[in-house]
Amino acid sequence: MLVDSQTENPLGRAIVERAELLAAHSDQPDALTVTYLTPAHRAAAAQIAAWMREAGLQVQVDAVGNVVGRYASADPEAKTLITGSHFDTVRNGGRFDGRLGILLPIVVVDDLRRRGERLPYHLEIVAFAEEEGVRFKSSFLASSALVGAFDMALLDRIDADGVTMRAAMRAAGLPGDEAAIAALARDPARLAAYIEVHIEQGPVLLDRGLPLGVVTSIAGSVRMSATVTGVASHAGTTPMPMRRDAAAAAAEMILAIERRCSQAPTLVGTVGMVGVPNGAANVVPGRCEFSIDIRAGDDATRDAAVDDVVRELNAIARRRGVALDLAQTMRVPCAPCSPRLMDLLEQCIARAGAAPLRLPSGAGHDAMILQRVTEVCMLFVRCGDGGISHNPRETMTVEDAELAARVFLDFVRTFRP
Amino acid sequence: MLVDSQTENPLGRAIVERAELLAAHSDQPDALTVTYLTPAHRAAAAQIAAWMREAGLQVQVDAVGNVVGRYASADPEAKTLITGSHFDTVRNGGRFDGRLGILLPIVVVDDLRRRGERLPYHLEIVAFAEEEGVRFKSSFLASSALVGAFDMALLDRIDADGVTMRAAMRAAGLPGDEAAIAALARDPARLAAYIEVHIEQGPVLLDRGLPLGVVTSIAGSVRMSATVTGVASHAGTTPMPMRRDAAAAAAEMILAIERRCSQAPTLVGTVGMVGVPNGAANVVPGRCEFSIDIRAGDDATRDAAVDDVVRELNAIARRRGVALDLAQTMRVPCAPCSPRLMDLLEQCIARAGAAPLRLPSGAGHDAMILQRVTEVCMLFVRCGDGGISHNPRETMTVEDAELAARVFLDFVRTFRP
Repeated sequence: MLVDSQTENPLGRAIVERAELLAAHSDQPDALTVTYLTPAHRAAAAQIAAWMREAGLQVQVDAVGNVVGRYASADPEAKTLITGSHFDTVRNGGRFDGRLGILLPIVVVDDLRRRGERLPYHLEIVAFAEEEGVRFKSSFLASSALVGAFDMALLDRIDADGVTMRAAMRAAGLPGDEAAIAALARDPARLAAYIEVHIEQGPVLLDRGLPLGVVTSIAGSVRMSATVTGVASHAGTTPMPMRRDAAAAAAEMILAIERRCSQAPTLVGTVGMVGVPNGAANVVPGRCEFSIDIRAGDDATRDAAVDDVVRELNAIARRRGVALDLAQTMRVPCAPCSPRLMDLLEQCIARAGAAPLRLPSGAGHDAMILQRVTEVCMLFVRCGDGGISHNPRETMTVEDAELAARVFLDFVRTFRP
Repeated sequence: MLVDSQTENPLGRAIVERAELLAAHSDQPDALTVTYLTPAHRAAAAQIAAWMREAGLQVQVDAVGNVVGRYASADPEAKTLITGSHFDTVRNGGRFDGRLGILLPIVVVDDLRRRGERLPYHLEIVAFAEEEGVRFKSSFLASSALVGAFDMALLDRIDADGVTMRAAMRAAGLPGDEAAIAALARDPARLAAYIEVHIEQGPVLLDRGLPLGVVTSIAGSVRMSATVTGVASHAGTTPMPMRRDAAAAAAEMILAIERRCSQAPTLVGTVGMVGVPNGAANVVPGRCEFSIDIRAGDDATRDAAVDDVVRELNAIARRRGVALDLAQTMRVPCAPCSPRLMDLLEQCIARAGAAPLRLPSGAGHDAMILQRVTEVCMLFVRCGDGGISHNPRETMTVEDAELAARVFLDFVRTFRP
C-alpha cells in the first residue's frame, strides 16, 4: 500500500516522502544532480516505474527514456489526458522541481484505484526524461518527442565527455534511432488535454499566503547578448568628460532594462551576466558584455518591452559615444493556458477551501511544448524558503502537497474531454 | 656626434630616433615589454649607458640597476639637480612612456657639452630601472631606493618563474644585498630639486592643441574593492519588486561614482573591473563585484569624493536591500609640485613660444617618490593618437620633442638651487 490513510495528510506525506527517496539517486555524491541517461537517471526512472506499477498503472519506457504510466479507461476509444513533468534536474537542484508533477499524480491514481474508480478517459502520467538541458544543452527534449518536434540532429550531439546522445541512448537500452523517436509523436485528435502540477519556483504564492495557483500562461523568453565597446584608457589621466567608458554605459543600460521591465505586472527583465573582459582597476573599460532576458505573461507585453529596451539602449550608446552590439540569442513565444481548464482548476481549488490565484509562469515547463498540440493548464504549488528553486533549499510542505493532490483528484474526476 | 644640428628639429629627431632604437630590446618578440633585470632590460640599460657616455656624462649603474649619468659642476660643493624617469615598460607598452624623460635630458646635455657650457650645480640623469611593477608586483622600486624607502622584504619576493629579486639582481651583476641598496639613499641636503619630463599619457594637451604642460601635482589613488550581495533567484519567476539584484544595485553604484567624480575638474573615478561570479542569463545575480579607483589633483578633493561615494553606495545598498562590502586596497597621498619650479617651467615654455597649461598628473610617476625628499616639477609632452599610452600606439611628434628639449635646456640654464 502506497498511502496510509490513517495518518494525517496521507497523500501529501506520500508525495514528500517519495521526493526524498527519489533524491537518493544523483550523479554527484553531495548534491542532487540527475542528468539525461546517466546511471542515477536510469535508477530514478526505475524507481518511478516501480511506483507507477504499484499504483496500478501500465508502464512503458519510450524511445527517449520517458516513463509512461497509463490508467486506462473502460472505453478503449476514449481520448487521453496527459499529465506529468520531468525527473531530470539542474546541477545541485531541488527535490520537487519537475518531480512533484510525476509523484503527485501517481499517488492520486493509487487513491483512485484503491477506491475502484475509473475515469471516462485514459489518464497517462509521463515522467519526462529531459527538460533542464544540462547534459546535452538541449532542453525540453522529452516533451518535444511527444509533439513530433524532436530535433534528430541532437542524436549526434556530444556531452562534455564526447559521448553522443545516440550512444548514451543505446547504453541505456533505448533504440537510439530516428524512426523510434518519430513514432512517439501523439495524434492530437486522440489527446484530451495536458495538465502539469509544478512548484511555483518563485515567491508569489508564499508572499500572498496562498497554497495554490492557476497558471494563465507560460512566458517565453527573449534573450540577447549585449557588447558595449568604448575606448580603454588610463584611469588616472583621462578626464571624466573625455571618457568613453563601456562599463558606465552598460550600468546605465542595466538600469534602463530594470526600469522598463518594472512597468507591467507580469513583465520581468534580467541582466544575469556582466563582465569587463581583461579589466583592471586602473583602466577605463573599453569593453563590457552583458546578457538580457525579458519575459512576460503575453508576447505583446514582452515584445513592446524588448522594442523599448533596444531603442533606449541604442540611445544611451549614442549619447555616450560607445558602440552597442545586440544579438538576439533566443525568442520563444508564450504558451497561453486553456481558459476552460483554468476555470475548472479554479473551481477545484475553491472546493478544497483555498483562494485561487491566477499567475503567469515566468519559468518554462513541458506544458509549453504540449500546448502546441493540445489545450494545457498548470497547477502551481507554493514553494517555501523565499520561493527558492534550482537549489538544495527548494522545499514545500506536506499540507500543501496534500491540498494539491486533493485538487488534482477533483480535477481528474470532473474533467471531461 | 649624437645630434646633427644641420637638420630641422635636431634635438627632437635624436630623441625620437633613440626611443625607436631602444624599443628594439624587448622580453617578447612582437611587443615592447621590458621588465626588471631581464636580458632585454639589461641590454636597454647598456644602450642608455652608452648614449650617456657619448654625451659626456660620467656613468654608474647603482645597486638596484639604475643607470646614473652625472654632468658635474665646476664647483664640487654644488648641490645636485636630478632628472630622469624609468626605462622598464608595461606589457605591450609604448616607446615614450618613461624613456622620454631619460633620452631628452641626454640629448640636451650633449648639446650643452658641445657648446662647452657648464652648470652651477651637478646635473644627474637617472634612468630608473623599475617603475611599472610588472615582474615583481612592486612599483617605484628604483626611485624608492634614492629616498631610502626601498622595502628590503622585496628582495625575497619571487617572480612568476619563482626567481627571487635578490637572485635576479645577482644574475645581473648587482650586489643584491641590503647594505648596498640602503647606501643609495641621497642626503636631502645635497639635493637641489628633481625634474621629470614625461609624455602626458592622456588626451588633455592634444585636445587643447598645446604641446607642453606644467604638472601641478601627482594624484594619489584611493582604491577600493566592492562586493554587493543580494539574493540569487529565478529570472522568470521572481517579480521585479521582489528582487534583490546585486548587478542592478552595482549598476546604480557605478553611475553614482561616475556622477560624483565628475563634480571637480581634476577628480576622476573609475570602475575598471565588474563581474557577476558564476552568472547565468536566467538567474537574477546574487553577487556582483567591482573595483573603484578615485584620484584628484589634491587629497582634500579626492577624500571628499571618496567619503561621498562611500555614503552614497551604502544608501543605495540599504534602499535595495542588498549588502555592500567595501574594502580599501590602496591609499596614496598626492604629491604637489613646487610652485617656484612650476613658475620657472612656465616661463621657459612661454619663451619657447608655446602657451603653457597647468594640469595635474592623474598617473603616478617617479617624481611622486622624489617629492618626499626634495622639491619636484614635471614637464608633460603631448601624446598623439587620442592620448593613448601603455599601448604600442603611444606616440609623439618630433616637433613636440624638439620644443620640450629646448624648454628643458632653458630650464637647466636658468634653474638655481
